[in-house]
Amino acid sequence: MQKHFTKEGIAELETLYRRNLMNTLIGFKNANLIGTKDSKGQTNLAVFNSFVHLGANPPHIAFVMRPTTVERHTYDNIRETGFYTINHIQTDIVKQAHQTSAKYPKEVSEFEACGLEEEYKNHFFAPYLKGANIQIGLKFVEEIYIKTNDVYLMVGEVQEFYIQEDCIRSDGFIDLAKAQTAVISGLDAYYEATEIARYSYARPNQEIQSIF
Amino acid sequence: MQKHFTKEGIAELETLYRRNLMNTLIGFKNANLIGTKDSKGQTNLAVFNSFVHLGANPPHIAFVMRPTTVERHTYDNIRETGFYTINHIQTDIVKQAHQTSAKYPKEVSEFEACGLEEEYKNHFFAPYLKGANIQIGLKFVEEIYIKTNDVYLMVGEVQEFYIQEDCIRSDGFIDLAKAQTAVISGLDAYYEATEIARYSYARPNQEIQSIF
Repeated sequence: MQKHFTKEGIAELETLYRRNLMNTLIGFKNANLIGTKDSKGQTNLAVFNSFVHLGANPPHIAFVMRPTTVERHTYDNIRETGFYTINHIQTDIVKQAHQTSAKYPKEVSEFEACGLEEEYKNHFFAPYLKGANIQIGLKFVEEIYIKTNDVYLMVGEVQEFYIQEDCIRSDGFIDLAKAQTAVISGLDAYYEATEIARYSYARPNQEIQSIF
Repeated sequence: MQKHFTKEGIAELETLYRRNLMNTLIGFKNANLIGTKDSKGQTNLAVFNSFVHLGANPPHIAFVMRPTTVERHTYDNIRETGFYTINHIQTDIVKQAHQTSAKYPKEVSEFEACGLEEEYKNHFFAPYLKGANIQIGLKFVEEIYIKTNDVYLMVGEVQEFYIQEDCIRSDGFIDLAKAQTAVISGLDAYYEATEIARYSYARPNQEIQSIF
């Protein structure tokens, strides 16, 4: 049985119900931890789930941020220092990753509070998550304010990244299932992904093939 | 063994390798088919994977579009008519969904060419994908041009949506695994997701609990 929601009906839903419903509506989301450090050396780690690939040249990644919430420290650190890391959440640390969403005071590092470890390398300013199979170092490029929803699209340029070598296939495709990268739904649910198929480039009137 | 890529190294990679690498780098992506119709009645259906939730009030969803590619017809139809649908790709139609990415001429509907069916209801202008467990009807709000990567962030307001009733939990959370919603990685790989855990609201110094 299909349930039908209208724009007017959405507005009248109980707040928490609406938040869960609307946050799960677009489908699955990526699962990353953003690592930052302020100019005094205080680190922060926070779970984010709304990243999009903007392009490979220049290598830009954007994510959605609500700086009026618990995401404030991440926002402030990025604006203050210009650098941050994106670290894939692996399926074996989803509980610790979720714990980073708690409202810790600024002087508490989520790395320590949540049982996770910082890693510094190649003189990159912001902390990586130690042990993450995929770690990306970014430089802040611009923020795009979306007034209707009071959110920012934060655009960053990839400066460097690290990947477990055996997770990259010969054509550059990263095997995210092998990297144990988790998937998020809504604000609080974590999933693991299993590959159904990878397909060849589609052309009209031609059968697509499975590729590896 | 970790492989290290730098910004300079990314720029020098072979084009296809770089495209695969950078498109899989941010982690898993959502899997949706956008349905549109031009003012003459010609329909279009195309796979997209970069959607973000902007907010529940107003209920806005954004997605990334490269209108200079095969995505042109979708872009033109949205701008011409102002309406489009987002339909979750279920795990049993990933092959047909991928086939919609082929460069069909404008006068060919991907619905028909890929063995999928249009559905019209509640006088909504754009076609839904028949049989999709989650179908969303949107009205175009604005496009935000991101010059550095020559892409558009297309913002839409949810006008209505349909969900199989048994996929919604009591608190509004949509069970995407039960809805058989697929997950995408890169440009061509499709996954199914299995729930690891859903966690309670995180608070400092408090153990998070699994919830259902």
